[in-house]
Amino acid sequence: MTYTPPVAEQRFVLDHVVRIQELAAHPGFADATPDTVDAILEGAGAFAAGEYAPLNRIGDTVGARWRDGVVTMPEGYRAAYRAFVDSGWGSINGPVAFGGQGLPYALATVVMEDLGTANMGFSLINMLTPGAIEALVAHGSPEQQATWLPKLISGEWNGTMNLTEPQAGSDVGALRTSATPAGDGSWRIKGQKIYITFGEHDLTDNIVHLVLARTPGAPAGTKGISLFLVPKYRLNADGTPGAFNDVRCVSIEHKLGINASPTCTLSFGDNDDCHGWLIGAEMAGMRAMFTMMNNARLNVGLQGVQIAERATQQALGYARDRVQLGQPIIEHPDVRRMLVRMRALTQAARALVYYAAGQADRAHLGDDAARARLDLLTPLAKTWGTDIGCEVASLGVQIHGGMGFVEETGAAQHYRDIRIAPIYEGTNGIQAADLVNRKLPMAGGEVFASLVADIRAEAGDEAGLMALVDGIESVARWMLGNEASVEDRLAGSYPLTTMLSVATAGWLMARQARIAATEASDPGFAALKQVAARYFLDHVVPEAAGLEAAARGGAALFYQLDAETLAA
Amino acid sequence: MTYTPPVAEQRFVLDHVVRIQELAAHPGFADATPDTVDAILEGAGAFAAGEYAPLNRIGDTVGARWRDGVVTMPEGYRAAYRAFVDSGWGSINGPVAFGGQGLPYALATVVMEDLGTANMGFSLINMLTPGAIEALVAHGSPEQQATWLPKLISGEWNGTMNLTEPQAGSDVGALRTSATPAGDGSWRIKGQKIYITFGEHDLTDNIVHLVLARTPGAPAGTKGISLFLVPKYRLNADGTPGAFNDVRCVSIEHKLGINASPTCTLSFGDNDDCHGWLIGAEMAGMRAMFTMMNNARLNVGLQGVQIAERATQQALGYARDRVQLGQPIIEHPDVRRMLVRMRALTQAARALVYYAAGQADRAHLGDDAARARLDLLTPLAKTWGTDIGCEVASLGVQIHGGMGFVEETGAAQHYRDIRIAPIYEGTNGIQAADLVNRKLPMAGGEVFASLVADIRAEAGDEAGLMALVDGIESVARWMLGNEASVEDRLAGSYPLTTMLSVATAGWLMARQARIAATEASDPGFAALKQVAARYFLDHVVPEAAGLEAAARGGAALFYQLDAETLAA
Repeated sequence: MTYTPPVAEQRFVLDHVVRIQELAAHPGFADATPDTVDAILEGAGAFAAGEYAPLNRIGDTVGARWRDGVVTMPEGYRAAYRAFVDSGWGSINGPVAFGGQGLPYALATVVMEDLGTANMGFSLINMLTPGAIEALVAHGSPEQQATWLPKLISGEWNGTMNLTEPQAGSDVGALRTSATPAGDGSWRIKGQKIYITFGEHDLTDNIVHLVLARTPGAPAGTKGISLFLVPKYRLNADGTPGAFNDVRCVSIEHKLGINASPTCTLSFGDNDDCHGWLIGAEMAGMRAMFTMMNNARLNVGLQGVQIAERATQQALGYARDRVQLGQPIIEHPDVRRMLVRMRALTQAARALVYYAAGQADRAHLGDDAARARLDLLTPLAKTWGTDIGCEVASLGVQIHGGMGFVEETGAAQHYRDIRIAPIYEGTNGIQAADLVNRKLPMAGGEVFASLVADIRAEAGDEAGLMALVDGIESVARWMLGNEASVEDRLAGSYPLTTMLSVATAGWLMARQARIAATEASDPGFAALKQVAARYFLDHVVPEAAGLEAAARGGAALFYQLDAETLAA
Repeated sequence: MTYTPPVAEQRFVLDHVVRIQELAAHPGFADATPDTVDAILEGAGAFAAGEYAPLNRIGDTVGARWRDGVVTMPEGYRAAYRAFVDSGWGSINGPVAFGGQGLPYALATVVMEDLGTANMGFSLINMLTPGAIEALVAHGSPEQQATWLPKLISGEWNGTMNLTEPQAGSDVGALRTSATPAGDGSWRIKGQKIYITFGEHDLTDNIVHLVLARTPGAPAGTKGISLFLVPKYRLNADGTPGAFNDVRCVSIEHKLGINASPTCTLSFGDNDDCHGWLIGAEMAGMRAMFTMMNNARLNVGLQGVQIAERATQQALGYARDRVQLGQPIIEHPDVRRMLVRMRALTQAARALVYYAAGQADRAHLGDDAARARLDLLTPLAKTWGTDIGCEVASLGVQIHGGMGFVEETGAAQHYRDIRIAPIYEGTNGIQAADLVNRKLPMAGGEVFASLVADIRAEAGDEAGLMALVDGIESVARWMLGNEASVEDRLAGSYPLTTMLSVATAGWLMARQARIAATEASDPGFAALKQVAARYFLDHVVPEAAGLEAAARGGAALFYQLDAETLAA
């Protein structure tokens, strides 16, 4: 079972949520003409459905295999990855100076959606390389950029992010990997990193690890962390991969899903011969890490959209074919409810993530308000996008009935694959903490207030949505005031994240429904958009309003028991 | 990682939710003395933790294996099952006349909870045999009862339910398996059944299949269905297993979870030598099926409690050990939120399922009002119990962070195992339809009204709960009135099921908190109960109230699009 790229939907969201014509009007994105956008949408969708999707099942059943430090990908993956590089799908928004196409990130988002909808596990290699590119663009020296960026942008080499160590997960500051100056401008890296996505594999002839490490005498915690570029193979004078750089893949994880993505434990410098190069200033590693991770967070939110789209298409196909009680089950009311919900959540999450991507593009063009809004939206897109991905995949299993629990249908694979998304790149709990601790208070609450004002201005006639927004504002006032403690804010952070995500997505759905009613050329598309929006506003929005009590419930109840009593 | 049986909690719920002393006051259950209850709780918990729990992981990793029609269970399973039979844990509520202990079903529920918390996949053999026992007790002839019940009650033989065929899932009436009279009082069975839990295995020396089939000239649909007893081996004159009865296990499913439970495709009568015996009257198979399934539905709801308990214990253990940012993560507010939620949902679901079990016992004693309430509660316990099982298991994965996605911790196994529960024994959608189509209108709505009256009478001071009950009554009035069509009712059936489940569980939690405050001897237990109840009433209840718009939203929106447009 493959899938059909949702080209019309993607185009509509680009037009009316991203407002890509505004971006194209800027000289920095002048190449994003309507024809180019169409060509990318059609081309990326066809590529993903044709090359990546057919490999999804073997990626799950055979998966990446480790033996003696070597990771082998399943049959067909090398050829498909080669085709990815050759067709340039990794270079959409890379800087032109280094071989990129200089197009908006919102367009790269569409390409990534297609690849991940086709094959989430495989597409992780395409999703993490951009983080390495961003870090080098923002913090690398001109020489480093010239050396590494072209190959990363083309995809000939992939990039990885090396943050986590066994004792240092969400607590990045606890990491112990060390970097010692070698006297020649390079450093010697020593330590072990876990959960490194595509940290070892046989798809490319080099791998560019970006590694957080601690330099001699560095202070404890996050302040003492620096970022290093550590290739699998050091480069020859002509830039080709040369000597092995003492980076070993010790093992890969046996996981619940995304089996096509090797999750590696990497050991750096077992033989004291692992060379690294500092990216940016010493001790400035955390800032560089956030550069790497910010887009990655949006991209993980996008994974929720990917799996939701795939699960929805598969469930719709099954529900049309499967006859029970004299009719296809798509005609049964509760199955309809599930399918409409799947459609609505998927469209709404796509709108939220694409909208955030559009803000990233405006920020790139120097728009500080867009930068601030992007910062506010990032935890929402990551958390809510991944949460709905899990919910929609679960509904997909449910619609398949008993067949959904049998692995052969593939419905269960989506359910397994997506479960990582609320965890990695900062757990959703970390995202929610980021929202209430850092994002809500930005500019004295004005960044938040500006988003709410936009929602009110455009969707003021949606009574349910306005009631939700009232609730959000009430919670936000309480959290920003003196009454609520840090613990109180954190205790309500997750429900508030959901509420604000739903309100923002509801606003964008209301807008799309209004425009579709008058402007969409395809009446079926317009009707579906309006039903999805109506369901979202009339069903999902009131559910989110039901979270207000939890959002402002405070922490006292949670700490009424000591840990021992809670766990007794 | 094993688990600790929640004996004090189980006892408290038996005392104050089931009110087991009321049952013991009846001559029919006079043996259910406090000492016996304590002995069963302690004994079953110790047995499950000692014998079943250690086999949970091998059940998942090795699982049941099929080869040439033979199913082999993993190492250790035969001995553990033998110990189960020897210790009599299967006979708690079996009729005394056939070797049972004649104790309340509510006590059998506790035993089943322990077995399933220890090892959900394995415990399915213990969960389905009671359905066969119930069917024989209610519909079998005296001779059939004498022949089969003792071995089923002891557990020496297990029982299976054979309903589903490839074209007949929720649509049971579409089944094609045939039964032809053989002239000697027996019938010849021919056909194929799928999804037969423990339909073949090496734990017992016979298997008693209860099979729905169609007799010659039977009308189409559910009216033409009869129930047959079809053993794996026919019996010798002395009652021991004799000739092979032409029932073959063609294959077992490769599933998302419960790998210790062989899910079999059974072929009956390939060689025209499969003998069956009619249970009850010809064409009365549907009624007998509901006898089999009713308790099974409660037991599936109980599986939600089982996995929720296990996942919660495991997450609590991990959260106390795992240190991040200078303290165990159990001290982080959002982790606290998740853990308190897990506790609250687990306790609330346990209260709901046990309460329903207590109604089954009263019905058994001839209380018609209790029978009616049980009928109303069954779809709630099945649907909401399994839904919270999935949610709590997912929270368990989340608390483990990256480790939760790695199979070695076992958190992912719970998440996979429980996903079947919303599907089998009637999908949750089928349950929700049962609620609005059959249960809500019982006695002109009086059965529903009586439950609501009890909630109001005892928990009238809980404002949030009363608001939820107001919403439920408003939805019910609309559904029972002339305005709402069948499709409208079905469109709102799932949200209403959740609302009524939460209201009922909230009522029982409020009662327990009140009693715990004054009567519980262990202050830690009392404090935990009160926090769990408070969380449930202040956080979960308002969420459920947020479903009112969906419950009375009607079907029009879902049918605004034809299937083709929805799926385009």
